[in-house]
Amino acid sequence: MASIFSRIVAGEIPSYKVAEDDKHYAFLDISPVAPGHTLVIPKKEVDYLFDLADDEYESLQLFAKRVAAAMKSALPCKRIGVAVMGLEVPHAHIHLVPINKESDMNFFKEKLSLDPKDMADIAQSIAKAFK
Amino acid sequence: MASIFSRIVAGEIPSYKVAEDDKHYAFLDISPVAPGHTLVIPKKEVDYLFDLADDEYESLQLFAKRVAAAMKSALPCKRIGVAVMGLEVPHAHIHLVPINKESDMNFFKEKLSLDPKDMADIAQSIAKAFK
Repeated sequence: MASIFSRIVAGEIPSYKVAEDDKHYAFLDISPVAPGHTLVIPKKEVDYLFDLADDEYESLQLFAKRVAAAMKSALPCKRIGVAVMGLEVPHAHIHLVPINKESDMNFFKEKLSLDPKDMADIAQSIAKAFK
Repeated sequence: MASIFSRIVAGEIPSYKVAEDDKHYAFLDISPVAPGHTLVIPKKEVDYLFDLADDEYESLQLFAKRVAAAMKSALPCKRIGVAVMGLEVPHAHIHLVPINKESDMNFFKEKLSLDPKDMADIAQSIAKAFK
């Protein structure tokens, strides 16, 4: 069965898309740890980041770098933090989180729940800055 | 002034080295969130991961992938988690953390303090598995 992320890529499940190319997709996490928290995934369904072939892994990481640059320019933050845990959804994904202090990266505090309008505005501002 | 990580690479400050090539260095975090928690750095002193040029960034990420593979084979864990926060030490670094459950990646709980002998044994077992 297709992973929830493959169904998002296919448009069967809606998402706040921030960037896409032929091999990669980036969209807002709906339970963000900070506003603008984005997930970057390969379209290819691979369970675990480090199971990607070197060239697939490199191109995903470069795509994530471009998404991070767009987030940094679109959102008020000092840095874009990166996290990969990979025990939740069996489809490799990189969390990118706009942070101003380390505790903004705390995945173990209560998640935010933002207004759909705010989510759409954030996604749009990142998408606009994506190069 | 050289960053603390550049002084580690230069051997002025001792470290539990797990892997090295001409451009990269990996060593155990002395305040690990889990046993085997490793830091991967470029030898070049760049403050922020995403400020690396694309080729430097790619080669650092590929080096990290090789270190993660060694950690996975040397240590009892389900996955190698990845984190970059980048607000602590002004020298880009990737945290690699052996995890069995997501909470093993919690950077905001009390850090471990392992026996030097155990740290040396862990570093050696990862170094031995590094290809």
